[in-house]
Amino acid sequence: MASDPNCVFCKIVAGNIPCFKLHDDEATLAFMDINPVHDGHCLVIPKAHYATLFEVPADAFAAVSRVVGRLAKAVDTAVRPDGLNLLQSNGPGAAQSVPHFHIHILPRRMNDGLLMNWTLKPGNMKRIGEWAERIRALL
Amino acid sequence: MASDPNCVFCKIVAGNIPCFKLHDDEATLAFMDINPVHDGHCLVIPKAHYATLFEVPADAFAAVSRVVGRLAKAVDTAVRPDGLNLLQSNGPGAAQSVPHFHIHILPRRMNDGLLMNWTLKPGNMKRIGEWAERIRALL
Repeated sequence: MASDPNCVFCKIVAGNIPCFKLHDDEATLAFMDINPVHDGHCLVIPKAHYATLFEVPADAFAAVSRVVGRLAKAVDTAVRPDGLNLLQSNGPGAAQSVPHFHIHILPRRMNDGLLMNWTLKPGNMKRIGEWAERIRALL
Repeated sequence: MASDPNCVFCKIVAGNIPCFKLHDDEATLAFMDINPVHDGHCLVIPKAHYATLFEVPADAFAAVSRVVGRLAKAVDTAVRPDGLNLLQSNGPGAAQSVPHFHIHILPRRMNDGLLMNWTLKPGNMKRIGEWAERIRALL
């Protein structure tokens, strides 16, 4: 299994750094975020080291997703937030903090100032259509 | 298949509202967001109507995840952003705009002011551990 000796999440997987464990199976680990935005903020990772979404094999992503689905429901029931986001970040422009693929399960409170929202602004349809074509060509 | 006649995404699935389609299979649909934050901003949905993550069956979530993994790589290659987020929102506190489960594939630009980032602030370990216990009990 791919592992990076300098990666904090790999160290957690190896048991060299403690965590508040929520779920543990062959392929995935889920644990509390220790810099929580709100109570119940937690993370799901593949045990193998992949820096970003773009390196994660389909099987590993599916395994993580299954855990996310189950765990998000448990967080929602436990915390009873006003909302909940799944957030996954890749690269410096997206403020990825740890370069080991992870999905945030992030309870929200009304007007919590988390600023993860944006104002809807209609786009240029021609431009959107052109981007659609470029993306489709790569699928 | 569950469908809500008042839901804009169900209307897109039914072909009653047009979209810039990226992917279409039995269970899922992917199309461009027409209020894009950046070029290449797109969405993946299950064709069946589920308001939030908490209603989505595991199989439907897995199907959506498979498409998200593939499509995110295509968006990254097409757009070459400085980062990319997956974002999924549930409920008013999380600013969910359309009450039909969807995952945003959101290219980012450095310092784009999208404000989807937060400052890391260490949490109270006792409190985090207590929440972990409550959540684990629900899994």
